[in-house]
Amino acid sequence: MEKWGNHTRSTSSKNQINKQAGIKKPFTEVIKANIGDAHAMGQRPITFLRQVVALCTYPNLLDSPSFPEDAKERARRILQGCGGNSLGSYTASQGINCIREDVASYIERRDGGVPADPDNIYLTTGASDGISAILKILVSGGGKSRTGVMIPIPQYPLYSAAISELDAIQVNYYLDEENCWALNVNELRRALNEAKAYCNPKVLCIINPGNPTGQVQNRKCIEDVIHFAWEEKLFLLADEVYQDNVYSEGCQFHSFKKILYEMGPEYYNNVELASFHSTSKGYMGECGYRGGYMEVINLHPEIKGQLVKLLSVRLCPPVSGQAAMDIVVNPPVPGEESYAQFIKEKESVLNNLAKKAKLTEDMFNKIPGIHCNPLQGAMYAFPRIFIPSKAIEEAKAHKMAPDMFYCMKLLEETGICVVPGSGFGQREGTYHFRMTILPPVEKLKILLEKVKDFHIKFLEKYA
Amino acid sequence: MEKWGNHTRSTSSKNQINKQAGIKKPFTEVIKANIGDAHAMGQRPITFLRQVVALCTYPNLLDSPSFPEDAKERARRILQGCGGNSLGSYTASQGINCIREDVASYIERRDGGVPADPDNIYLTTGASDGISAILKILVSGGGKSRTGVMIPIPQYPLYSAAISELDAIQVNYYLDEENCWALNVNELRRALNEAKAYCNPKVLCIINPGNPTGQVQNRKCIEDVIHFAWEEKLFLLADEVYQDNVYSEGCQFHSFKKILYEMGPEYYNNVELASFHSTSKGYMGECGYRGGYMEVINLHPEIKGQLVKLLSVRLCPPVSGQAAMDIVVNPPVPGEESYAQFIKEKESVLNNLAKKAKLTEDMFNKIPGIHCNPLQGAMYAFPRIFIPSKAIEEAKAHKMAPDMFYCMKLLEETGICVVPGSGFGQREGTYHFRMTILPPVEKLKILLEKVKDFHIKFLEKYA
Repeated sequence: MEKWGNHTRSTSSKNQINKQAGIKKPFTEVIKANIGDAHAMGQRPITFLRQVVALCTYPNLLDSPSFPEDAKERARRILQGCGGNSLGSYTASQGINCIREDVASYIERRDGGVPADPDNIYLTTGASDGISAILKILVSGGGKSRTGVMIPIPQYPLYSAAISELDAIQVNYYLDEENCWALNVNELRRALNEAKAYCNPKVLCIINPGNPTGQVQNRKCIEDVIHFAWEEKLFLLADEVYQDNVYSEGCQFHSFKKILYEMGPEYYNNVELASFHSTSKGYMGECGYRGGYMEVINLHPEIKGQLVKLLSVRLCPPVSGQAAMDIVVNPPVPGEESYAQFIKEKESVLNNLAKKAKLTEDMFNKIPGIHCNPLQGAMYAFPRIFIPSKAIEEAKAHKMAPDMFYCMKLLEETGICVVPGSGFGQREGTYHFRMTILPPVEKLKILLEKVKDFHIKFLEKYA
Repeated sequence: MEKWGNHTRSTSSKNQINKQAGIKKPFTEVIKANIGDAHAMGQRPITFLRQVVALCTYPNLLDSPSFPEDAKERARRILQGCGGNSLGSYTASQGINCIREDVASYIERRDGGVPADPDNIYLTTGASDGISAILKILVSGGGKSRTGVMIPIPQYPLYSAAISELDAIQVNYYLDEENCWALNVNELRRALNEAKAYCNPKVLCIINPGNPTGQVQNRKCIEDVIHFAWEEKLFLLADEVYQDNVYSEGCQFHSFKKILYEMGPEYYNNVELASFHSTSKGYMGECGYRGGYMEVINLHPEIKGQLVKLLSVRLCPPVSGQAAMDIVVNPPVPGEESYAQFIKEKESVLNNLAKKAKLTEDMFNKIPGIHCNPLQGAMYAFPRIFIPSKAIEEAKAHKMAPDMFYCMKLLEETGICVVPGSGFGQREGTYHFRMTILPPVEKLKILLEKVKDFHIKFLEKYA
């Protein structure tokens, strides 16, 4: 409209043209290996999951012969749990009852029969929402001194961001890079004892399989951590969103909940535990649905009341994300019409990821000045990179962290986007970056070759 | 599994049986008139919106002859804005570009050509998410004294909850019940001046059309409010989620943005304004999708940076909710295949709501001891109820607010669930409740008759 001179819109259009025009770069495409966003990297959705969500979205399709009966059954069940049989209704803040029941059954199957109570399940807007909510509740209950929250270093930065937003104290414990990023209880104890001097540590966060570090904790290590939490009366927060992403021979995912129960009633009646899962990772990679759940056990009834109150402010998690979560925990089973296709799609994704995990580790370890621990699980490599002192000086002159400087150069010269280790935390004087293994195999190979060439040139330049 | 005695699950089942068994009640059905949840009350989704979201969810349907071309076009456009053409990818934290462009075009059409910049549009997880985020940013920028946030009384309790969570100061201004819940600038000034003694008032929240009060502000009143905000350098926060819900003759929705621009550059270059919209209300009633947007203008670039950072912690709004929002701002237009059905469905919902608004007002005003202002807009009645002093005494003996006592009795005796006015705030010594007008007409009539019978008996009992 002429009247307002259309000034704002035209500025915006100009920006977009600038973006498109750009400056000539030595690459044709930016490869976003910085974020665990499977579909954006070309992974195809699981057909069954999308069929069920589409049926729930547009129930006229329940009469269509092109949808399988098992998908229709799932959709009918979910719709029966919705007010007015519509995804458009609010649900209870905690999520749809029948989906929470399916989550509980899934956990029982996964954990070899350890009981799970739907009342302890909260559907969430992705795992992040649950983690933020629990941290908020635990931190706000603090007394005089500020609440300490123990997190691994390196960590997924949601934790540091949430802790700082809540004005709590971040208590770092370091994973052991020399030992395949293992979690060592002595290090937990060191961190806790030092922290007690200046805060009130109440929460211990674990990420297993690790993000960005990709390690998978063994049973013994989990038992040690649980014993430590029991001894020190710490609330355990187990981020287990990569539970389906385990690749290395001899590695297996054990949930904290399962091990807790196997350690006996002294533990499972006392240790407070929240664990998190999501639609975003695993083999489905449905990040955009913002689906997730948390299971919270041994939560004090009063705190539980506060949690429900807090969750009710955001009304309810997105209902199509709840539906997607239902299919993650309640996929087709043998004998059902969709089983064959489902298992084929699932295994294809997971086998590919396993192949890419090995490929990435192997290729990184052939590059001089790069060392990469085995990618036992999750979907990232977190290689350690040697940065020559001349490059460190130049980074400092640009007021940049040395690994940020490295990653910027990598991006400018190759179009490959990865995240500097300083975004996750790392031991002083060590440098890393995080890269996803999500690009298709052929593209990943090219990407790794490019990193190799870049790195060798970088070493030469700053020798 | 026997090993764990299945104790948790069996407790849960027992609870459910108790819920089902219950105690014999003098009604057959609970009518939930407490929450603005249209689909749960039987309203049907808008076909076109669901078709587009289903097509985006399961793109195989793009080949199906049973979906109209205009829906397919919308779906293709949205998918092109998604990483890997999938709803399962993360989007930018601010939301998908092409949807933000559609929102900007919608605002320009709505506001008679006042320009809107897609860069100022943020897609959100329902309107609540946007409101909480903006409040957090504005409050955290505070200096020595705590930030005051002015809110109407009665208000939608999201505001009081967010303010208390952020440890800010709630500054009440009272809507004028005698004058159809009008907003009076003298009252704003009184509230502001008193508040300056104990806090730093920085934000003025307006809900228009009003929730729970249903008034629609006229142009003069909006101009006065904008002038006041300009004068006092207050950040204006305009909750306009009921912008499509205007029923009374002679009432019209005016956006704050439009009036701001019409007041001239001194205003539109200086007054900071955030306005909110949602998929949940209007004629679509898609609460479960958690779709929404906010437009923020004149935000300081530094604060804008903080906002983007804050929003990025939750990664992105649910993508199917973003798609639903797109259809709300970009529905079928004359000449398109789906237009006739769309406009029929939309008008049916809105005409029905208008009819129910009038019916509710009329029926309430026939009940002795109840007075109800005209329901000019939104989807609630907020009648004032006379509660006899004997009932007030009995409520106090039960440690209940008198209107809570009244609403509990109403629920117990009739199965009708409404929300006591004390949940929204009201002038000392006055009592109200909020009731939605969403039940179907015939059911609403029965409901209002039941309230009438209950109220008359209540007056007799406590005379």
